[in-house]
Amino acid sequence: MSTPLAAEDLRELASSVFKPLPSTIPAIKGNRVTKEKIELGKALFFDPRLSASGVFSCNSCHNLATGGDDNLETSIGHGWQKGPRNSPTVFNAVFNDAQFWDGRAEDLRTQAKGPIQAGVEMANTPEQVVATLGSMPQYVEWFKSAFPDKDDPVTFDNMAIAIEAFEATLITPAPFDKYLNGDDLALSDVQKAGLRHFMEKGCASCHSGINVGGNGYYPFGVIEKPGAEVLPPDDQGRFEVTKTADDQYVFRAAPLRNVAITAPYFHSGKVWDLKQAVAVMSSAQLGTELEPGEIDAIVEFLHSLTGEVPRIEYPILPAETVTTPRPTAEIVRQ
Amino acid sequence: MSTPLAAEDLRELASSVFKPLPSTIPAIKGNRVTKEKIELGKALFFDPRLSASGVFSCNSCHNLATGGDDNLETSIGHGWQKGPRNSPTVFNAVFNDAQFWDGRAEDLRTQAKGPIQAGVEMANTPEQVVATLGSMPQYVEWFKSAFPDKDDPVTFDNMAIAIEAFEATLITPAPFDKYLNGDDLALSDVQKAGLRHFMEKGCASCHSGINVGGNGYYPFGVIEKPGAEVLPPDDQGRFEVTKTADDQYVFRAAPLRNVAITAPYFHSGKVWDLKQAVAVMSSAQLGTELEPGEIDAIVEFLHSLTGEVPRIEYPILPAETVTTPRPTAEIVRQ
Repeated sequence: MSTPLAAEDLRELASSVFKPLPSTIPAIKGNRVTKEKIELGKALFFDPRLSASGVFSCNSCHNLATGGDDNLETSIGHGWQKGPRNSPTVFNAVFNDAQFWDGRAEDLRTQAKGPIQAGVEMANTPEQVVATLGSMPQYVEWFKSAFPDKDDPVTFDNMAIAIEAFEATLITPAPFDKYLNGDDLALSDVQKAGLRHFMEKGCASCHSGINVGGNGYYPFGVIEKPGAEVLPPDDQGRFEVTKTADDQYVFRAAPLRNVAITAPYFHSGKVWDLKQAVAVMSSAQLGTELEPGEIDAIVEFLHSLTGEVPRIEYPILPAETVTTPRPTAEIVRQ
Repeated sequence: MSTPLAAEDLRELASSVFKPLPSTIPAIKGNRVTKEKIELGKALFFDPRLSASGVFSCNSCHNLATGGDDNLETSIGHGWQKGPRNSPTVFNAVFNDAQFWDGRAEDLRTQAKGPIQAGVEMANTPEQVVATLGSMPQYVEWFKSAFPDKDDPVTFDNMAIAIEAFEATLITPAPFDKYLNGDDLALSDVQKAGLRHFMEKGCASCHSGINVGGNGYYPFGVIEKPGAEVLPPDDQGRFEVTKTADDQYVFRAAPLRNVAITAPYFHSGKVWDLKQAVAVMSSAQLGTELEPGEIDAIVEFLHSLTGEVPRIEYPILPAETVTTPRPTAEIVRQ
């Protein structure tokens, strides 16, 4: 067994691997965040009329009340269809290098346009979304305020830009940030032991940086492939994006902030118990059988990533008008 | 044409028919409303884990962002099944004499237990709900605080009592309340003309009291039955509750507060335009063909019932534990 590091040394090592959250909303490349964009984005995020059926909003699968995700194996969408992968949390997602389990969207505004159009999710079209939003004078006003330089501000792209601005505010400072910022008492002794294991055993090789993950792609089962239950053979991950053999069963390393409140785990959503998830990772990715005490300590450390959710006033959305397109529950495409 | 009433006379007449909202949360028979019950009830109201699938909360069909209803013809529930009737607004519902379109629940706590168990809505069971809530220590604490005298506070009945307490806070004072309370400028001249028509033409015979409706049962089509599109023949309304021939096609008079933001209309949800809804009512219930100007004025008056929605902080819900029952999307009953 290795000797416990001195308090200062452990923090120094951790600070070389991880980064605390910033105290302000981060700058987004190509999208200057303003109060007006945030307010519009919040309304859009909560608006079920972005879906064809009028049933699902962004918040349905990225519920800010339940860890920024939906706590389902995979999400249920239009026509009661099941989505292919577990819904990732929106909290701190602005710090991920790319979005989706396969990283196919480079930023949140690109991501936001995906589920709205996916036949198994919100099943809508850009034209229908723009017609819906443009039919409500209050939305038109909000778009004008958020995009004052545009002659025609109500566009699908601007919708996504506003949603991205709102999502950039969804940052959840956690005890681990306090610790990285110098507060030794922010983590318990067990959590510090877990942090040490997390770095020494190799977890931090993939789960590092500001989001303790979310910044690189790795094959799931690099040492030992988990069973088909956890790793369904028909979902080849990033291979479906790059069509490169090396990318078979490659997924983005999950960002681990708030992991303790965002079960179930993995892209398949098949594991509900965080201890089991840590055990699967250690055998599949590290080829290590961790001691039960080590797993327990790592799980305790992961709890220190559960952050404080920003207080959000539930929005009051504009009312439909007689020209608003009507919702349809019909399934026209998969 | 009748002579316009003097300002004082119009308000006096209106005050004999309608009542303004109170300034405080109303007392509920058999349910003393406390801060702790309200907070617990808010969490429960927004919690999708009250449904079998984990997809639907009370707020899904009674969305506080969109007028307290879902703006669908009839709600979509478990397994993408369509409910039989249009979802009524939860705003000010505490003032209705009874709940549901057929008045089959005498109060909101009885109402709250209905959709949670309905196979086409949330499709859950009381046992499963109690197991779900009892698996999360934070919920157990909240129930203890809300029901300090109970040895076993986490019950299905107490869940409903807490939801009722929260819903009692969902009161939306409107310009019409200001008017009844003495502010002549709270209504425009057209709205005052509309109010006069509303009383003189007979609308107020059914739509009266504090909620401008919600306090009596009447046959839909008392003078002239609307077409099957608006009044589907297989929904016989209160007859299904009382089995009394007199109650065929009898429904609760809709409470009209916030009617302008809660399209579509009627129990069938088939009419989206408030003007058309007023026209249908006047021919079906009053046997009167209103002049277009009269309909316009009544619609303007109805807009004065759109109230101010209370500011609500979006709740942060307890996280599941390993013992929390898992959501299931399976359809086991209709």
